[in-house]
Amino acid sequence: MSGFAVDPAMIADAARRLDGRALRTPLLESALLNEAAGRRILIKAECLQHGGAFKFRGAWSAMTALAPERLRAGVIAYSSGNHAQGVALAARLLGVPAVIVMPEDAPRAKREATRALGAELATYRRGEESREELAARIARARGLTLVRPYDDPHVIAGQGTAGLEIAAQARAAGVARAEVLVPCGGGGLTAGVALALAEAAPDMRVRPVEPEGFDDVARSLAAGRRLSNPSEKGSICDAILTPCPGELTFPIMRALCGPGLRVRDDEALRAMATAFERLRIVVEPGGAAALAAALFRPDSLESDAAIVIASGGNVDSALFARALTRNDGAEV
Amino acid sequence: MSGFAVDPAMIADAARRLDGRALRTPLLESALLNEAAGRRILIKAECLQHGGAFKFRGAWSAMTALAPERLRAGVIAYSSGNHAQGVALAARLLGVPAVIVMPEDAPRAKREATRALGAELATYRRGEESREELAARIARARGLTLVRPYDDPHVIAGQGTAGLEIAAQARAAGVARAEVLVPCGGGGLTAGVALALAEAAPDMRVRPVEPEGFDDVARSLAAGRRLSNPSEKGSICDAILTPCPGELTFPIMRALCGPGLRVRDDEALRAMATAFERLRIVVEPGGAAALAAALFRPDSLESDAAIVIASGGNVDSALFARALTRNDGAEV
Repeated sequence: MSGFAVDPAMIADAARRLDGRALRTPLLESALLNEAAGRRILIKAECLQHGGAFKFRGAWSAMTALAPERLRAGVIAYSSGNHAQGVALAARLLGVPAVIVMPEDAPRAKREATRALGAELATYRRGEESREELAARIARARGLTLVRPYDDPHVIAGQGTAGLEIAAQARAAGVARAEVLVPCGGGGLTAGVALALAEAAPDMRVRPVEPEGFDDVARSLAAGRRLSNPSEKGSICDAILTPCPGELTFPIMRALCGPGLRVRDDEALRAMATAFERLRIVVEPGGAAALAAALFRPDSLESDAAIVIASGGNVDSALFARALTRNDGAEV
Repeated sequence: MSGFAVDPAMIADAARRLDGRALRTPLLESALLNEAAGRRILIKAECLQHGGAFKFRGAWSAMTALAPERLRAGVIAYSSGNHAQGVALAARLLGVPAVIVMPEDAPRAKREATRALGAELATYRRGEESREELAARIARARGLTLVRPYDDPHVIAGQGTAGLEIAAQARAAGVARAEVLVPCGGGGLTAGVALALAEAAPDMRVRPVEPEGFDDVARSLAAGRRLSNPSEKGSICDAILTPCPGELTFPIMRALCGPGLRVRDDEALRAMATAFERLRIVVEPGGAAALAAALFRPDSLESDAAIVIASGGNVDSALFARALTRNDGAEV
């Protein structure tokens, strides 16, 4: 696996830096869910991670890899929400300042939680302003280090620590061969987990899952080159709406991942209701994409067991209540 | 601790039988929750346990302690819900028949989940028929073994395994001295955890939490003898509405527990909304009682850290949606 921006040793290093800091999230399983799905489904509950998503892993990994004086000066991040919370929480725990650049239409729960963690917010209008340019300008003016959401080797390595845990937890559950479904935006989690599993569980194959109409990674994997989405708006799965696969993440996904899967918004909502009823976890729409694929696209899968990452759980209560009530009685 | 129906060695034995079977549920923590509460709050998320509540521990412990031929003949249990699911799930995994005696007004989610697990249901009218007599009659006629919800040494020992995990997980989190708040019905979990901690974490003190008006354990602890509730109806915290403390559990609680705490139904609902927003777990009203006490009765606590058990998460989606929407914006 030489030639990638990240190697397995970097993931092992990140795991050591995260030990005792990140939650070793449980790998959940439900007898009733397995029966409904016709195969074993193991759910890696990263929605329980500190900050409510896997993003804390990458943020902590990247920040603890900085030189002490750079870390002390503070960090800046742009994010539709979960990366923001991960960076804000890591900054708080490390005692350094953080500025978060966030679209002004980001879910209320995410904006408020980020601010409550002590981060400073700078907002922009999605589709009109460039979050990258705004962040770069603030970073230069204030000497902050940008923590990228996915195209950073230490971020990818941090997300990969979830893959190391999956390998060990699945082995303990008697599962060695499985498809591992990962909700996929820019590909940091997908690439990191794929790298970790290539070494730690070679009979597992990672497959990215995206919202229908925002399937840049699936199309890019099929085409062999990076393709873009026509828009960044139009799905409730806001956590995984990104313009195109990352420069660093795509070569890793291309080498290691199976074909991408696509789910509709209503399937994500039904998966949220199923996770509520059968697993007692709170999952946001984008975070439920992989579970939705396992439940509602069973013919796209080949293996006897599917491992799905429930990647985040930061969702407005009104939307969550809607997912429960519109599907009442119709869950898997 | 001699003279009790259960001793620490029985809990250690139960932990061995449950190893790899019960989920080692995570001990969650939220920086924002700590800040709001003014002390560290660690949440043992037993709502993530198989079957959605700690009850699986006791059911598995009791059933695997039976002689093989008695186990094969099958089991019967009476329960307002979570114990039923625990017994039904354990019976399914052990491949033996199970009959569940349940009030006909038990939440739909609990009735359906119990049936989906393959158990046979026998219903009774709460307050009119005796579930004990009905269960005894069926057990005699069909050669089934009764698995009691709390007054059984092996059940108490099984619930106590959650206490062993709390001791180890709290130590890893740097907490040695704490009050441990436990939602309390008949006292199986409370007594089991108290026994486990008396040995494994002697600087922790267990305190039972009950709904206002159904505080038989708190009053019994204050009086030094077992007192009853005037009614078994009238709180949404159905999982912890029981007539009086158990014969076996009360002496243990009396020797080891601190004074009981009481919470209102609306506080339980607000705690459910807080658990949704800050911890991304689904907790039912009775299961949220201890968290409610930690959040809304802070002056009743003495220690710098509170450990609360979120004991169950089996709740109808309509009630959960109500907890979220009525409290929108008002969570801790």
